[in-house]
Amino acid sequence: MSTPQGYVDVRDSWYYILHPRPAYIIVAEANGKTNFMAASWVMPLSEEPPRIVVALDKESYTAKLIVDSGVFSVNVYTVNERDFVYSAGTISGKDTDKLSLLGAKVSKNPATGIPRIERPRPIGVIESRVYKIYGDVAEDVYLVVGDVVAAYADEKLFNERFGWDLRNTKILLHAAGRGFTTNSYVYVARKLI
Amino acid sequence: MSTPQGYVDVRDSWYYILHPRPAYIIVAEANGKTNFMAASWVMPLSEEPPRIVVALDKESYTAKLIVDSGVFSVNVYTVNERDFVYSAGTISGKDTDKLSLLGAKVSKNPATGIPRIERPRPIGVIESRVYKIYGDVAEDVYLVVGDVVAAYADEKLFNERFGWDLRNTKILLHAAGRGFTTNSYVYVARKLI
Repeated sequence: MSTPQGYVDVRDSWYYILHPRPAYIIVAEANGKTNFMAASWVMPLSEEPPRIVVALDKESYTAKLIVDSGVFSVNVYTVNERDFVYSAGTISGKDTDKLSLLGAKVSKNPATGIPRIERPRPIGVIESRVYKIYGDVAEDVYLVVGDVVAAYADEKLFNERFGWDLRNTKILLHAAGRGFTTNSYVYVARKLI
Repeated sequence: MSTPQGYVDVRDSWYYILHPRPAYIIVAEANGKTNFMAASWVMPLSEEPPRIVVALDKESYTAKLIVDSGVFSVNVYTVNERDFVYSAGTISGKDTDKLSLLGAKVSKNPATGIPRIERPRPIGVIESRVYKIYGDVAEDVYLVVGDVVAAYADEKLFNERFGWDLRNTKILLHAAGRGFTTNSYVYVARKLI
């Protein structure tokens, strides 16, 4: 490859170019087992119909529960919960009870039957029903496409027009390894022409 | 839907729950025409093979150029370039020459033939070759899966172990509408157990 002057080839850690990005907790439950994991490879896919995509390690226990149950939630945190989210991302729930280890509590939305984290309290939740799972698009990863069936945010921190109130909301963003960061205040862009 | 206490149902602007997130410029060229657009619905998909996914409005001119050429790049900016990125996201290149309107310059990597922005200078670039385009997963949106064929970052701002040096790098993040933000410094997480 010819790398332009002033740049360094970063082929081995290329995905860090697309970080920092929000770090979430994904929750799922199937056959009486509940688990959750950290994930930042999550994004909106389409506004209408409301759909998201999530990239999940095929070996992860949460991915297995999503495949089995067909539902999951995406839980949004502030930077204050970085230790919880980091820990959730480094412990497997396959052979341990991650919930009690981390002091977390999961509840189901009675209207949808979809589990979310209740404690530590997320500032936003998207509940999703699997629309399609692509298992052949990457060797180790499922590309999960989900319909958004419910979406709610902390009433003190979010408004429908501007989204999060960034003066008062410090969204958790994952940089690399143990490194997290958060947003600063708002910069208002103007049109150049 | 039953919204838990302390939360507000945000079904109409649900995707803002997943913001702020990095805002990029996507560049493509086909049949002698070059164009670019702003996008923040972009993420890594798999580490090995290195793959990314991008959600693109089917009607966008850049999406058409990607379908025709099979290649594109993702260009990363700092918050200093918010006016450029915002403007790139609000002007269509279909009937105008967006490059000259915005004073931008595009170059091709001689080794790969893939176009990137040269000016205003991005701090990082991922060059990608389309692996697969899913046109049936959302009505108005292509889900583009691309192989990463080159990845390079500003040699002063990035290192392979920690990614961006967040003390000195202010990544552009899109909040909502004209509102952008950037990262703060690094918080180091610790394991709870």
